[in-house]
Amino acid sequence: MKYTVITGASSGIGYETALAFAKEGKNLIITARRQAELEKLKKEVQEIDSTLDVVINVTDLSILENVYSFYESLKDYELETFVNNAGFGNFDPVGSQRLEKIEKLLQLNVEALTILSSLFVRDYAEKEGTQIINISSVGGYTIFPDAVTYCSSKYYVSAFTEGLSQELKTLNAKMQAKVLAPASTQTEFSKRAREVNEYVYKGDFHTAKEMASFLLELYHSDKTVGIVDLSSYEFELRDPIFNHL
Amino acid sequence: MKYTVITGASSGIGYETALAFAKEGKNLIITARRQAELEKLKKEVQEIDSTLDVVINVTDLSILENVYSFYESLKDYELETFVNNAGFGNFDPVGSQRLEKIEKLLQLNVEALTILSSLFVRDYAEKEGTQIINISSVGGYTIFPDAVTYCSSKYYVSAFTEGLSQELKTLNAKMQAKVLAPASTQTEFSKRAREVNEYVYKGDFHTAKEMASFLLELYHSDKTVGIVDLSSYEFELRDPIFNHL
Repeated sequence: MKYTVITGASSGIGYETALAFAKEGKNLIITARRQAELEKLKKEVQEIDSTLDVVINVTDLSILENVYSFYESLKDYELETFVNNAGFGNFDPVGSQRLEKIEKLLQLNVEALTILSSLFVRDYAEKEGTQIINISSVGGYTIFPDAVTYCSSKYYVSAFTEGLSQELKTLNAKMQAKVLAPASTQTEFSKRAREVNEYVYKGDFHTAKEMASFLLELYHSDKTVGIVDLSSYEFELRDPIFNHL
Repeated sequence: MKYTVITGASSGIGYETALAFAKEGKNLIITARRQAELEKLKKEVQEIDSTLDVVINVTDLSILENVYSFYESLKDYELETFVNNAGFGNFDPVGSQRLEKIEKLLQLNVEALTILSSLFVRDYAEKEGTQIINISSVGGYTIFPDAVTYCSSKYYVSAFTEGLSQELKTLNAKMQAKVLAPASTQTEFSKRAREVNEYVYKGDFHTAKEMASFLLELYHSDKTVGIVDLSSYEFELRDPIFNHL
């Protein structure tokens, strides 16, 4: 019995991605800080397919020791896909950003993603059909004003995942690594990034459900990057975008 | 009396950059883990110009609390230039990299650089003639095989510094932000990255002294990026390279 791991599954893209994998008959290991939301997701998954196993793990991956204990807890399961979706944003000029929040952002977006990816690759790179999908952003390919640190953390994710993808190919490994780069998506992202209680998405945006279906398109393709084109707002499957030696 | 701060000043590009700024009559605050090397540097600086003040601060910036206490210690001085040079590399496939080393790499290359940059910008963005120069790598613009995590940390540095540079211009701030992207440079870098006692540089490389003189060219220019061209190994001053919205 194989499992799909999804971090940051309590809401937004993570939540909808869990439902989308459930519709493909995948057992799930879902993690986030909020137990109630994960219980709700588990119930929804089991309404889709009551034969699926859904394992809930409540933890805060912005704390380093939790990253290792979370991965340790996965040792009892055979993994197939690992979706590093947990992450958050921040909108502030560099000189006025709150550094406590920035530390957490870097620990979650960069450090936790790197450690979980490295451990999953170490254990599963030679297992047929395995995939790692890391969630970056269009801000991981274009730098947006007032979001310099957030975008830089996503440049890290894009470079790391593209580089890993190329490396796995060079090593003839069985695992594939892919990066999803959403643009504006209707989730809790903007509220947390802006530290406001309400945020109304205007102009072009995708729903979390649309983004999850893009993620599944990327999952089923042999391309490395799934990115929203900023002019057309179309989802595109692409080869690595950065320069690779 | 104004000071130029240089992190990672005990060897390599940091050490030579301190000497280069000394030759331009700049007082220095130099930091690294190794006291003896900093004392040696101070002596060399004072042989160049005995009127210069050189402040030594021995600390390990890969430990978060040291980053804040180091910056706190700077409050007694008026700063002019801040060179975030401290950093190290690693060469390993993602699946076999040593995670303890990777954690330190991310904490130093990404987190310490972000916090020090943010604090310096917060306090000095409106002071005439101030500059922040962050040391990235050609690996922060092109992903190298077997160095995926290191390159990704440098993609972070390149994006962060280019983004900061644009942001300071948009805000009409007085501070300039610049990024240096060396290629192979004869320093202790390769030994530490490869965890070997000896490493002989072959093929194309620059000396640390050459790289420091490139850094001073960047300092005196109004360009944002100083990068070594990988085909000619020439040093080039350029406008931001990444996409900016």
